[in-house]
Parts: sequence; structure tokens; C-alpha cells
Amino acid sequence: MEKPVSAFSRVRRRPQRGIYQREVIEAILDAAPFCHLGHIVQGRPVVIPTLHWRLGRNVYWHGNSASRMLKTNAAGGEVCLTASLFDGWVLARSGFNHSANYRSVMCFGIGRALQDPAEKAEAMAGFMEKRFPGRWSRLRPATLQELKATSVLTMPIDEASAKVRTGPPHDEPEDLAWPIWAGVLPVRLSSGGPEPAPDLPPAILEPPPAPP
Amino acid sequence: MEKPVSAFSRVRRRPQRGIYQREVIEAILDAAPFCHLGHIVQGRPVVIPTLHWRLGRNVYWHGNSASRMLKTNAAGGEVCLTASLFDGWVLARSGFNHSANYRSVMCFGIGRALQDPAEKAEAMAGFMEKRFPGRWSRLRPATLQELKATSVLTMPIDEASAKVRTGPPHDEPEDLAWPIWAGVLPVRLSSGGPEPAPDLPPAILEPPPAPP
Repeated sequence: MEKPVSAFSRVRRRPQRGIYQREVIEAILDAAPFCHLGHIVQGRPVVIPTLHWRLGRNVYWHGNSASRMLKTNAAGGEVCLTASLFDGWVLARSGFNHSANYRSVMCFGIGRALQDPAEKAEAMAGFMEKRFPGRWSRLRPATLQELKATSVLTMPIDEASAKVRTGPPHDEPEDLAWPIWAGVLPVRLSSGGPEPAPDLPPAILEPPPAPP
Repeated sequence: MEKPVSAFSRVRRRPQRGIYQREVIEAILDAAPFCHLGHIVQGRPVVIPTLHWRLGRNVYWHGNSASRMLKTNAAGGEVCLTASLFDGWVLARSGFNHSANYRSVMCFGIGRALQDPAEKAEAMAGFMEKRFPGRWSRLRPATLQELKATSVLTMPIDEASAKVRTGPPHDEPEDLAWPIWAGVLPVRLSSGGPEPAPDLPPAILEPPPAPP
């Protein structure tokens, strides 16, 4: 996937920001804690934030089996899964040259619902392992009922692209002396201190490390 | 808008998390630095991250006039503008009761493209004023050509809903003694130190404050 696999996944606006290398796409999917999943319901676009995870060459998402989104996805409609990280405000001397630094990935495809409870459990274990290594095997084990109540969808990361902007503003040469501050105000996701559940027994003191 | 205005904007999954108060919806739109805009292109859902802003009872987004997204939006297709903030990982004793804390807003509607350059300039000034108060009037003024090259779309915040989860995990009573840490690992957007543009004259030292 060194090139766009379709006219659809080709980055059209500012094509120089388009990236099709699998390792870049995978790194952004792994760094984003959640995604926005777009699908079509009764002819209308619907975009829902949801947790996602990547295992190998596939991306996964999940939720309650009663969810309209997951039922629609499982029925074979096309989806667009977009995961984005906002990296900063880019302040220029003109309004026009203001921008944002970001990393984003769009994946197009059709989700497949996992049917077998063992396959679901494996996918869920993979999810937990990505974010909180070692936690899954220490949890109270999933019941069959819980696995039935959970829908897990997956699709291959095939028709996908990344788009990235980094670095300082690009001003017109004649604007450089304009007397105003220009540069980047970086933004990032950061972790606060762990908040133990009110019903956590006092003997259990150690929270897991926050995901990267 | 104390109630969902349509079956479409009613929060269906975990309806107790659905909120329809205008002030809650507006606060989330203001707090999110960017949104994900979903629309339909050639029958397929496409979700693109983009900056948005709110002025009064309307939400705005913008970009290069040559953008496929903005051309499609201006042609009157329906959109779903979703803005989300990820607030933390919610760790429970069972995988099933893991969750995430978040605030999100979905707005459905049809975008209207601003035509008049003065109306565009006013909307852009409003955008800058929301994020960087006082900056717009100090910038190198926008040219007519720049305003022509910029598409600004808007729609009323009418068919909209917010969905919010806060607080600790909710475990089954029989799981509370399970010997594993449970609670919330908070996540938030934070600002790093300003990075002056390499071509910033040394006399200009003062960056603007980061947006809230």
C-alpha cells in the first residue's frame, strides 16, 4: 500500500500530506485512543465516536449487540473509520495561513461481525493487551452471556490513507515582518493521576500504567 | 431543545447518557478543538477531521474552496458533524464493564455555503475570536482573493444531541472483591510550550495564550 489503492482513498486536498505506507497508518491507528465511525442510516450520514483497536492488518471496533450502529455495520453497509490526533494550533501572520498540526487515518470498507464467542474473546483480549498489557488474564473472566451481548466488528486495513501536517506556519514572504507572534501552540493528550474506584478495596493500590 | 427533535438525534444506546440541552451541546462544541464531519460521496460514507466553531446557534466549518468535501457540502448533501472529547479510560474488574469517559455532540443538517466575502470575513473573525481573542484585528488583513479561496459552511444546531459518560466503573456487586485495580485513568488535551516560527523576528516575543 505504497500508493492509494483507489481514487477514493487518495488524499485529494493538499496531496503532499497524503501518506499510504502501512507502518504510518498503523502507528496513527495505535496512537489514537478512539475513532469516529461513519456509516449510512436511512440514507443519512451518521458519525459516532467509538473505541477501536488494530491487530495486525485489521482494525476492530465493538459495542453492545443491541447498538444500531453495530447492527447496521454487521448488515454489510460500508463504513469509514477515521482516527485523528490533534497536535497543535498553527498561527500565521494572516488568517489564511493559519492551520492545525494533526495526524489522521481514514479506512474504508465493510465490517465483518465476529460470530464465534472464542473469536470475540480473542479479539477483546487483543484490545486489552494493546492498551493495558497483562490486564486481560487478571480480569474476572468473560462469561458466555457477556460475549453474546458484545458485538465485535473488523475490517482489513486495505483502502486506507493517512494525512499528516507538522511544523511551523507557512507565511507569504511579504508577511514575515508583520508584527504578530507566529508559530505552533502544541496540543497533546496527556494522562492525569489515576482515580481509584470508590469501591476499590484498600489492599489494591497499584493502577496500571496509562496507555502510551 | 430539551428533548430530541427527531428520532434520528435521539440517543438510542444508553439513552440515560443522552443530553439535549442547548447549553451542554454548545459547551462541548466549544471545548472540542476539531470535529469529524461525515457526508456521503458517491453513495459511500466519508468522515473527515476538520476545524469547526460555534457562533450563537450555528456551527461553522471551512477550508479551501477546491476541497471535495466542501464542494459536496455546498451542493446540499446532508452532513453529520460530530465533536468528541476523550476524558479517560474506565477500568473495571471484568472486561465487559470497561468503558471510556467522554463528551460528544452530533449535529445533523445541511450546510449552507456563505457567499458574500464580508459574511465570510465576519465568520472567520468570529472563529479567531473564539480561539484567540484579539488576534484577528492584529493579523495582516484578509485579501478578497483569500476570501474567495476559502469556503465557509454553516448549519443551525437544531437536530443535535450530546452524549456524556463520567465517573467510575460500574461493576457487578459480586465482582467488587476481584483482586485487580479499578477506576479511571483520566486523559485530557493539554498545551505544550509555544514553538515560535523559525522566521519570527526576535523583537516579537509574546505568544497568545493557548485556547481553553
